[in-house]
Amino acid sequence: MDEAVAILAQTPATLDALLRGLPDTWTTAHEGGATWSPYDVVGHLIHGERADWIPRARIILEHGEDRAFEPFDRLAQLEESRGKSLADLLDEFAARRAESLRALEAMALTGSDLDRRGCHPAFGTVTLRQLLATWVAHDLDHVMQIARVLGSQYADEVGPWRAYLRVARDT
Amino acid sequence: MDEAVAILAQTPATLDALLRGLPDTWTTAHEGGATWSPYDVVGHLIHGERADWIPRARIILEHGEDRAFEPFDRLAQLEESRGKSLADLLDEFAARRAESLRALEAMALTGSDLDRRGCHPAFGTVTLRQLLATWVAHDLDHVMQIARVLGSQYADEVGPWRAYLRVARDT
Repeated sequence: MDEAVAILAQTPATLDALLRGLPDTWTTAHEGGATWSPYDVVGHLIHGERADWIPRARIILEHGEDRAFEPFDRLAQLEESRGKSLADLLDEFAARRAESLRALEAMALTGSDLDRRGCHPAFGTVTLRQLLATWVAHDLDHVMQIARVLGSQYADEVGPWRAYLRVARDT
Repeated sequence: MDEAVAILAQTPATLDALLRGLPDTWTTAHEGGATWSPYDVVGHLIHGERADWIPRARIILEHGEDRAFEPFDRLAQLEESRGKSLADLLDEFAARRAESLRALEAMALTGSDLDRRGCHPAFGTVTLRQLLATWVAHDLDHVMQIARVLGSQYADEVGPWRAYLRVARDT
């Protein structure tokens, strides 16, 4: 749990370092089609703080498997981020993450709490431990995605080095 | 160039936010075989500051295509990092990157400088512009790698969510 909280606490600073101050042309560029830009990803992470991790942990603690989680809206940020700058979103994410971690701490979870089971609308039975591990892995997944999307902007500029660079090669 | 420098300048803070303070069991774990841990990657980035980017830019500016770059030693960090903590390496990377960016600024590169050509030992002709774009993409490639390696530690803990998480699924 300490390791998990260490990563969760650092993600806002990681995204800040990666993104704040970059030109919009970079932070709103994506990988084509309906893929997400870094701007979209930060909005998605904010929605997760609001609707996913802590709310689902509460459902497990209060209702166990009797009440399935609300399905998570993977497109909510398209509406919720409207009119906000990336700097606004980074600030909002940092504030909401800090709030989530305070709520997590207040739960004072024991080992047996972590084994408690809930009901995922698609997967069925999951444990609170799996939910919290997923929160961490989900952060890292999106850090990876943002680095990849930013790097893909340079796919042509690198010339022959493309062969050595996964961010460029996978574009 | 401004965008490139913005990313290059932020990478030490990104790695700091991602890695500093995590337990060694996480930062020295890798993806199996001869793959690299986050600790190895930071050492590799330090070696790049010393032996790759600015030294190669200087070779282009001073010798053009007449002198091929020194081949880059992709395993140098295994020796050079010996005995150092990850915190030491993060500090060293930040200091060397700041030094590299001062050297880059002092070059006061013009558009036509960026078109100057050098000789890569494997690829043949490359431009200074491609070298500098590669420096940026290389940073992002390794940020992506570190997030993936950290996330892969949670591949089992996430249970059925594995199907939704690239960091867990690709392990």
